[in-house]
Formats: sequence, C-alpha cells, structure tokens
Amino acid sequence: MNTIKDVAQHAGVSVSTVSNVLNGRTDRMRKETLARVENAIDQLKFRPNPVALRLKTGQTPLLGLLVPSLANPMYGVIAREIETFAQEQYGHRVLIGSTYRDKEKEATFFEDLLAHGVRHVIVISSLADERHFETVVERGMTVVSYDRPAAKGRPSKVVHVTPDNFEAARLATEHLIEHGHRRLAFATVAGMTMSRSAKIQGFQAAAGRRGLQKTAVVLNGGLLDEYGDSVMSEVGRALALRLAADPARPTGIVAVNDLMALGLMAGLREAGMRVPQDVSIVGIDGLFLAALSNPGLTTVQLPVADMAHAMVECAIAQRVEDEALAGERFFTHTLLVERESVAPPPVSARKSAIKAGARKARA
Amino acid sequence: MNTIKDVAQHAGVSVSTVSNVLNGRTDRMRKETLARVENAIDQLKFRPNPVALRLKTGQTPLLGLLVPSLANPMYGVIAREIETFAQEQYGHRVLIGSTYRDKEKEATFFEDLLAHGVRHVIVISSLADERHFETVVERGMTVVSYDRPAAKGRPSKVVHVTPDNFEAARLATEHLIEHGHRRLAFATVAGMTMSRSAKIQGFQAAAGRRGLQKTAVVLNGGLLDEYGDSVMSEVGRALALRLAADPARPTGIVAVNDLMALGLMAGLREAGMRVPQDVSIVGIDGLFLAALSNPGLTTVQLPVADMAHAMVECAIAQRVEDEALAGERFFTHTLLVERESVAPPPVSARKSAIKAGARKARA
Repeated sequence: MNTIKDVAQHAGVSVSTVSNVLNGRTDRMRKETLARVENAIDQLKFRPNPVALRLKTGQTPLLGLLVPSLANPMYGVIAREIETFAQEQYGHRVLIGSTYRDKEKEATFFEDLLAHGVRHVIVISSLADERHFETVVERGMTVVSYDRPAAKGRPSKVVHVTPDNFEAARLATEHLIEHGHRRLAFATVAGMTMSRSAKIQGFQAAAGRRGLQKTAVVLNGGLLDEYGDSVMSEVGRALALRLAADPARPTGIVAVNDLMALGLMAGLREAGMRVPQDVSIVGIDGLFLAALSNPGLTTVQLPVADMAHAMVECAIAQRVEDEALAGERFFTHTLLVERESVAPPPVSARKSAIKAGARKARA
Repeated sequence: MNTIKDVAQHAGVSVSTVSNVLNGRTDRMRKETLARVENAIDQLKFRPNPVALRLKTGQTPLLGLLVPSLANPMYGVIAREIETFAQEQYGHRVLIGSTYRDKEKEATFFEDLLAHGVRHVIVISSLADERHFETVVERGMTVVSYDRPAAKGRPSKVVHVTPDNFEAARLATEHLIEHGHRRLAFATVAGMTMSRSAKIQGFQAAAGRRGLQKTAVVLNGGLLDEYGDSVMSEVGRALALRLAADPARPTGIVAVNDLMALGLMAGLREAGMRVPQDVSIVGIDGLFLAALSNPGLTTVQLPVADMAHAMVECAIAQRVEDEALAGERFFTHTLLVERESVAPPPVSARKSAIKAGARKARA
C-alpha cells in the first residue's frame, strides 16, 4: 500500500503539501501543485489512513452534516452512506445534527462547527435562501448543499449536489397516466422547498403534456411541526382520511416522498379503501421501507449512494468535476421501481371521467 | 428568566462554580457545594442558555452519541430525542456516529471524542464486554451505556440506562399464549448482545410458565453485515421464507424488534401466508413504522423519550438518582400496543398441537 511519502515523492512536493491537499487546505496552493498532487493520488490509488491522520494532528478531522431530522429514515440512510464513505475514504468523522430546515438553526450550527475547527460541511435543507451558506464559505468553510440546484444567474461558492427532482416526479406521474389515471394529485406538506417545488413542476409538466392540467391537483397535507419528518407519515395519513370522504377524489397520487406515501396508504386503509384498487400511489426516494409495505410501494429510486459519495468528495477533497466547478452536480439517474401500489383506476372513476369528457365535448 | 448569576447568588457560590456544575466538572467539588448549586438550579428552574455557553467558551459543548447504525430508524428516533433534549436543556450539540456494535470501532470513536475535548458520551451498543468504556471513564469521560444493565457484582463507573428487555419479551410472549398459541418462536439475528439475551430469557420464562418449553424455539435469522440494522428487515424476510416452507412452523412469533417484525411480515406475505390468520407476530420497540404497516403491528412500546432524557441527564448533568449512583437506571414501563398482527392460531395448527399433546399423554 502506498503512503503519503510515496505520493509526495511521485508529485515532487513535500509531505505537508500532500497533507494540505488531503485536508482541503488548498486555498493558497498553486493550481499546478494541486493538480500534480491529485494526479499522484489517483495514479497511486492512495487512500489516507485514518489512524495516521489522527496521530499526526491529534484529532480526526470532522465533516459536518446537517439534516432536516434524524428521525426521518431517508436521512438516516443518506447519513450512513456519507459517514461510511467519509471515514473509509478520507478518515473523517461526521458531526451530525437536525436543523429542521430552519435558517436560524442552520446558521447557529455553522458557528458551532467553525468554533470546533470543522471546515467541511454537507447541508441537507433545500431552502431557497442560502445566504447563510455563502457567509460561512467566505469564512473558509467548504459547503455542499444537497437537494437543490444552484440559483440561476447568481454565481455561488456553494457546491450543489442534487437528484433530478423534476424528472423523478415526472416519471412517477407518467406511470400513473400510462395506467389510465386522469384525476391526478401530488401530495406534499406545507412549506415550499426547492426540491418540493421541482417535484411539483415535474408533476404538472407530465399532466400538462396529456392535457390533464384541470384534473391534476397539488394537495397540501398541512404543517409539519418541529418534530421533524417522522410526522410526514402522519400528515399523509390525515390527508388520506380527507380524500376518502371526497367522491371526486383523485385516483392516482404521487407522494412527495416515500414516508408520505406510506402514510397515505395507512390512512386510505383506515378509511376502508384499497390500494391500488381504489387509489394508486407512487412514492419518491426508494427507501428500503418501500419494499416492506403491503402492498409493496411503487417508487422512484434516487441514486442515494452515488450522491452521498459525490457530496463527501466535494466537501472534503474538493475534487470537483468541471460541472461542479460551476457549482453543481446534477444526478439525472432515476429509476421507477414497480411494486404493487399502482393499478388502473376503478371503473366508477373511469365512467365519471368519460362523462366529464363527454360534457366537455358537448360544450 | 433567571441567569447563571442568579443561580450563583442563590447558592452562595461563584459563577464559575455554577458553570463547572453545568459542564459536568464536579470531580473535585465538595458534595455540599454541588448539592447547593443543584438545589438553586432546581428552585430557580434555571436552564443554561446555549448561546451564552458558547460565548463564554467559544465552543458549544458536545455530547458524543454512538449508535449501532444510523440507518436503523429506531436509533434515528432515539437520537432525535437525545439531540433535542441535550440542546434545549443543556445547550449541548451531539456528535453522532455508527459503530455497528464493534468494540474496536467504539474504542476508536472514544479516542476521537477525547481529542476533540468531548467529555460526555452515550453509547448504544449492549455488548457484554464494556472494558473499553471503563478505560475512558478513568480518563475523565462520563459514559452512559444504553440497553443493558450493569454487570452484577462488578462495581462500574459507567451509568447504565436500560428498558426492561426481559419484561418486554415476556409481555409479548404472554400475549401470544393468551391468544391460544402453543408453537412459539423468538426471532433474532446472529450475535448475542445483552439486550437480545434478556429478551430471549423473557420469552423462555413466559413459555416455561405454561409448560411450553419444548414448543418454544429461538430462531436465528443469520448474520447482519456491517451495513447495519437496516438489513435487520432483510434477515426477517429471509427467515420468514424458510418458515413458510416448514409445515411444523411456529404459529406465534416474537420478533427481537419492530424492524425484524416488519421483515417477517413482508416475507410471509411473499410466501403467500397471511398475518395474523396463518402466523401471528409481535414486535418490540414501538417504532412509528409499526402503526403504518399492513396489518398494523402489535408491539411492546418502550419508554423511548423518558430513557433518552435520563441518558442526557446522566451524561451531562450527572444528576443521578440513588439507584443510578449504583450504576443503573432501569425503565420498567413497557406497554403492549395491540393492533392487528395477532389472532388465534389456525385450526390446522391447533389440531396438530392437540394430537401432539395426546401422544405425549399416552407416552
């Protein structure tokens, strides 16, 4: 196995220069030097040894990770990927906390991280306003923002890593339309994040392409309290109970995420309705829980592991690709995983849709 | 609102003495002084202001939290409780990591915490061997160990906070027996932790009391890989597929936790069996996901919030009750939450149980 000395020799630089690169201290480094070291690291397939790093500095370097809520299993899964990759590949430990997509909480957390010498942070938040991110970047922090693209026309020093939320929702909606659904809904919670907004646009674009704008609605299930995203499923359940009482209810629903979808399914069942016979549901995330539900939840799988690895690379090693230098890494790979929660709409709904169509034709 | 100065004045001590108490630096403090400060804190209902703490030291104090795996939603829920309580009540941030119940990983994490000046840690692990905990206690760390009692007859400097795992499993097993089940199983994974062992004992005690020792088996679903407890459900699913192929299968199963129970239910369904008509299942944890499953999962609810608060108190404020001074806080409160996953055993199983009983009587 190659050591840091081998890398230094190969690149023709000092060991401390290599150490600076490994620890992201590259601000005042010449581009040529950085490129030489990175080349040597690649060619020798060098991976820093966490124990050696710790012996040298006395402290294992830390990577900050801010998630909306630790109680949401989706963030647990992402956190696990980030943590393993950061530790195995870069010898970093992860300092995690919940910030509930609250700007104040995020800003305070940044202060705490800076005070503890943390210089690399991944933030899962998707808030539209990221000025507090820019402020800490100016103070020497590398910030990776997950689940939203960079703002157009505004150069940003924040790296954005995001799945294609528009495409994920579009794919889910198309799947329902292909099964014959005309009365469509997108189920979300109160509070508009960039990712929720992109999903709604994807939903509306798919509906619009088939002339279904008028029968495609966005349903807001209500507020999440600070308790975090574990109550997402409760919001879904309450929303389902309301829908069950409405004879003109949508027959096909795209949920903002899998947890909301699981809540919708539980609520519909509670109200005596069947999924997929009465209502079809598609989730977004591809959480392992989707495979455990009954019926199995059809969902759009996001490339979680790939994105987690990219976030760690961007945050720690700053080895960003060309597109990332422009502030963004966009993961377009989305995959519809078909299980059992989608079927054609019930006959009664198809008849009333035909009648509505006939009325329209006569008018 | 009262300030730290009010507390100092009320107790007749200096502000820095109060600060020492708040930050757990009480080793060299006289017991009388500590009691006076704690009294004043109680009487004035004083809560330290996180921002003030940070301004004073430049750093928000950190609480370490080691969990088996961040990808297990149960630890996500506990972590959220710990984090909120530590922050709101004591102004501490939480530094979390997954250690996969691996002694080496735990020991390395302790080193990293010490290097970062962290002096308070909660470890969810339940390993039988805790010598690595004792070592860091000697170096000035306050360690709270979750999910196992103190070893009998060995004085420990580690505080143990645990639910009554024996009672939880006993309650779950009794519930199955009351519904007429005679062929019982306890489903677990490979690797014996203290909490798993206590649950097995509770299961066997309940079966033994009814003379069902011979028809009560412990099923080991196999190894978890390092990926952590999210594969717990996969182990449950594989176990269920094996059970479905066995005509002498148990009719009532207690799962080591809710995630295992959800996996068992998914596997049984995959094999064309019905819960609860063919097999009844009871979980342990009371995870919010148990309410979302179909059928709803009957489970033994553990007092998660109470235990999380106690862990934070013991770890940070060292305000331990008498019993805790003996190294232990035992939460006996367990509650069976009945949903839909338990019914009487199928008639065929009842008949063969009667036959087996008759054979036994003749022998």
